[in-house]
Amino acid sequence: MARWEPNARERLVRAAVELFAEQGYEATTVNEIAERAGGLTKTTFFRYFADKREVLFAGSALLQEILVRTVVHAPPSTSAIDAVAGAFEAAAAVFDERRDRVLRRQTVIAANPELQERELIKLATLAGAMATALRERGVGELAARLAAETGAAAFHIAFARWVAEPGESDLRALIGESFSELKALVAGEWTSPVS
Amino acid sequence: MARWEPNARERLVRAAVELFAEQGYEATTVNEIAERAGGLTKTTFFRYFADKREVLFAGSALLQEILVRTVVHAPPSTSAIDAVAGAFEAAAAVFDERRDRVLRRQTVIAANPELQERELIKLATLAGAMATALRERGVGELAARLAAETGAAAFHIAFARWVAEPGESDLRALIGESFSELKALVAGEWTSPVS
Repeated sequence: MARWEPNARERLVRAAVELFAEQGYEATTVNEIAERAGGLTKTTFFRYFADKREVLFAGSALLQEILVRTVVHAPPSTSAIDAVAGAFEAAAAVFDERRDRVLRRQTVIAANPELQERELIKLATLAGAMATALRERGVGELAARLAAETGAAAFHIAFARWVAEPGESDLRALIGESFSELKALVAGEWTSPVS
Repeated sequence: MARWEPNARERLVRAAVELFAEQGYEATTVNEIAERAGGLTKTTFFRYFADKREVLFAGSALLQEILVRTVVHAPPSTSAIDAVAGAFEAAAAVFDERRDRVLRRQTVIAANPELQERELIKLATLAGAMATALRERGVGELAARLAAETGAAAFHIAFARWVAEPGESDLRALIGESFSELKALVAGEWTSPVS
């Protein structure tokens, strides 16, 4: 009989990220993850995750919820691109609260091309959800996709900078900087080497 | 002894895309691809490609070369984002010339999540190469990455529209439209449902 294990999902994520960072993603088994999570079983693991890869992407549902909610609730006067920027800024707190784990997770992903591919798919899925939320605000089809996907690219660059300089940088500020620079850029402010 | 086979690479790509479209990517073997390519062997196949997946991404080296060359040779007065837009417009001809095969290839990719992930990685690699080319023009680090990655997102949207409406649309024109809309968007032209 399955026992109810308090906080099992959270414990499994924490254990998996630790083990992947310590001994490598490929070398880690589901059994080891369950054991490290305070003596859980493989059966409990598979109640929460389809496979060990999915543990690394467990946070994306929460992230998507924050992004979509922020876009939906942005004031009507907010432009599409500003709604997307605001959504990523709102989500920054999720990363800041889990800073150590996020950085450890990124190290694991950086070492494994299959995981990098998965990460890009997840980001594309988040962009798709934001595009849908923008269309529901009345933004046109093309504009909604562009705002969501270029916004996701701007976020991704800020996130990479935050990961690269963990001690000194604030993710929310870096996201703001990415979007400001994007505006300057599209307005044509980067022209020639001597400009 | 290996015979020299004229145009083997091109024949293998054509045969692979045909077979993947006819009978599915998973169901197709390297032997079948080599056979369909006019009686080539598995050995010949592996002289050109690491595995059957790579056949689908054989065009990305040419694409990268065109993108980088166009960015490098853009007039000095061209802004970073316009250099990226111009590069994708220059590359549009490659797709137009191979329209049927590109569309068949997209059908294969759309049916297979692993291939979709690979496609996103290839696009990210192309963006990385363009960012390097922009930095060599004197564009700052952050601006170069933003122009390349948001530009790649704008291209990707145009490409998806072209694939969805093959009979009616011109890829080069759709790319131009994507970048124009991006400029309007970042300038704040999509504000509220009633604007």
